[in-house]
Amino acid sequence: MPTTVRPVDYDDADAEVRAIYDDIMATKGIDFVPNFWRTIAHHPALLRRTWETLKEVMAPGALDPLTKEMIAIAVSATTGCEYCIRSHTAAARKQGMSEAMLGELMSVVGMFNETNRLAEGYQVETDDAFLQVP
Amino acid sequence: MPTTVRPVDYDDADAEVRAIYDDIMATKGIDFVPNFWRTIAHHPALLRRTWETLKEVMAPGALDPLTKEMIAIAVSATTGCEYCIRSHTAAARKQGMSEAMLGELMSVVGMFNETNRLAEGYQVETDDAFLQVP
Amino acid sequence: MPTTVRPVDYDDADAEVRAIYDDIMATKGIDFVPNFWRTIAHHPALLRRTWETLKEVMAPGALDPLTKEMIAIAVSATTGCEYCIRSHTAAARKQGMSEAMLGELMSVVGMFNETNRLAEGYQVETDDAFLQVP
Amino acid sequence: MPTTVRPVDYDDADAEVRAIYDDIMATKGIDFVPNFWRTIAHHPALLRRTWETLKEVMAPGALDPLTKEMIAIAVSATTGCEYCIRSHTAAARKQGMSEAMLGELMSVVGMFNETNRLAEGYQVETDDAFLQVP
Amino acid sequence: MPTTVRPVDYDDADAEVRAIYDDIMATKGIDFVPNFWRTIAHHPALLRRTWETLKEVMAPGALDPLTKEMIAIAVSATTGCEYCIRSHTAAARKQGMSEAMLGELMSVVGMFNETNRLAEGYQVETDDAFLQVP
Amino acid sequence: MPTTVRPVDYDDADAEVRAIYDDIMATKGIDFVPNFWRTIAHHPALLRRTWETLKEVMAPGALDPLTKEMIAIAVSATTGCEYCIRSHTAAARKQGMSEAMLGELMSVVGMFNETNRLAEGYQVETDDAFLQVP
Repeated sequence: MPTTVRPVDYDDADAEVRAIYDDIMATKGIDFVPNFWRTIAHHPALLRRTWETLKEVMAPGALDPLTKEMIAIAVSATTGCEYCIRSHTAAARKQGMSEAMLGELMSVVGMFNETNRLAEGYQVETDDAFLQVP
Repeated sequence: MPTTVRPVDYDDADAEVRAIYDDIMATKGIDFVPNFWRTIAHHPALLRRTWETLKEVMAPGALDPLTKEMIAIAVSATTGCEYCIRSHTAAARKQGMSEAMLGELMSVVGMFNETNRLAEGYQVETDDAFLQVP
Repeated sequence: MPTTVRPVDYDDADAEVRAIYDDIMATKGIDFVPNFWRTIAHHPALLRRTWETLKEVMAPGALDPLTKEMIAIAVSATTGCEYCIRSHTAAARKQGMSEAMLGELMSVVGMFNETNRLAEGYQVETDDAFLQVP
Repeated sequence: MPTTVRPVDYDDADAEVRAIYDDIMATKGIDFVPNFWRTIAHHPALLRRTWETLKEVMAPGALDPLTKEMIAIAVSATTGCEYCIRSHTAAARKQGMSEAMLGELMSVVGMFNETNRLAEGYQVETDDAFLQVP
Repeated sequence: MPTTVRPVDYDDADAEVRAIYDDIMATKGIDFVPNFWRTIAHHPALLRRTWETLKEVMAPGALDPLTKEMIAIAVSATTGCEYCIRSHTAAARKQGMSEAMLGELMSVVGMFNETNRLAEGYQVETDDAFLQVP
Repeated sequence: MPTTVRPVDYDDADAEVRAIYDDIMATKGIDFVPNFWRTIAHHPALLRRTWETLKEVMAPGALDPLTKEMIAIAVSATTGCEYCIRSHTAAARKQGMSEAMLGELMSVVGMFNETNRLAEGYQVETDDAFLQVP
């Protein structure tokens, strides 16, 4: 089913958007611009901000890129965003996520979505030990 | 504010529940039974199942325990469960999560909660490239 | 912490709002107007619509009122609304929910919040058998 | 894929439901009854209550109808409801929402879904200044 | 659209997984293994834990199985999980849920998703009466 | 209860963070740095990105700042983020949101959280008319 705005094709994009498209393809090592980016390009400032933030956030740092990609899957599975689940699962596999890792990741995501609702459903009081801040 | 059921104190617990409490403290290396476990003990089968599952899910495997604990934080921040955020943040720090790691974790969680809504809000179509399954 | 609008006290309410307050107390068999209703009374049309709908929705019908109240707890635990969890838990107990029933209710809510995320996280395809409509 | 109940066609509807269908088409200025309304018509009391509430809530008042429709998009993008996103986006456009307005709306929705998780993920304490109630 | 992992067919499954598949079909009285179970079987420990928990949680107890199945629908409608909504609706119908019961169930789910956001949106203070624990 | 990281006071902040703090206070016309910003300052890159994005997103454009602030309330009420609800409600009032506007805003947020779950709970099919893209 169609996206609610018309995605911007490379050939129809202006120079600023094209430069971002080129950077997306080069950074990700892919030869197409995913629909997500072509969609938000209908509002170029949103494209620019989102891509710049993504590059910073996903760069290697205190956490490695694969761990970050798996956290993205965890967030997306919790909110139930299909596009996000599929694109982050593909990206994580490309970075080396094995099927065993995915199985454990889903086990963790499932379990804590359960315990989250138990803690909320009973309104469990926070233990003093968990209130210590370094 | 109080939990909606009366948490079960160690001294009031029967032998089966006490054995689980002992295992929780020994496994986690703590000298108290967190309120979460004392709460769900009002329904002992729930305590038993949840603890057994947790031990399996959080054991070292294809993912290490600290990565799993950070995924638990990501899930809990996404659902907004206070108890869960505080207890998993404390647990992750105990396992070595630095403040820099927490800062990157939150950056990732924040960013993908944003892009999840952009993908949903525009109903972005999934790219064919993301539909490949190994 | 305070509600973000000033709840309307019985003595400050106009005749229409007072009539609804009286009906709330009579219908629920309580001698106070819960904060929820006093809060939305700042916008009287919202109070009127919400109370009229609630009376219809919670009346005995194909489902009994206690079952409906437990479904309200399930919804509230899933969204994590503290006021809602506490008020519906109190209401369900008043209508006869035992601690064993609450334990099973929470077990069901927890479990299906888990399986929901597994189904989403893997993007499980719907079986044809589940697409039959009577 | 099919709705889980059989939507009620105009020709199969009883007089009460037909009257509501007529009112929906007249009020919205459309010549078909959207699937949402035909679906909840399987439980006529739900159709009646929901349509009456909608008419009241969406009427011009302190907020104009287009602003209300954009708030509906914001809610629907946040929960990820496809039908809702598509129908409210169509309705808002009909009322004059430009592509620039949609782009800013999505930017706002995306950003605050991000900051919501940052505020929750760190359990930020509410500032005293934000607790003042007029 | 395809599941993100390859579901495990009966013929490709090892003895442990087959035994679970047999138990699922026998317990549910169906002659196929739903995609959900075939999907999580890619990580056999997840299949085993989830199935064992489900059998315990859904067994008759203080709540009957149909009530539990309707609570599963309430959770799934609240999170918006398509697979879950469709499979639990089918299962509840098989256990005797009438269309009138479904209509009331949806009315309750809809209403409390509304009041949950009103209670949150105004940050309604919990009444003292709702803080009593038996 | 404390934030899970130590908020950064103005006096302890380095020059880059202080400059952002100064800009926050000047832009918002307040004489304190809200806890949200002092919290994310523990990871300065997150502070910088978030503040720069906020300034762009909330600037007058196709939508006015008050409408944007009310959309922020709608998002926050839907996710249930207390800090966010309180801070955006305070900010919207400062920009002129009347109590009548807040009452209508909450009515809209409540109503569409309800209809979202009805549309999901019944898996309503999207009408062809809603699939047109300009």
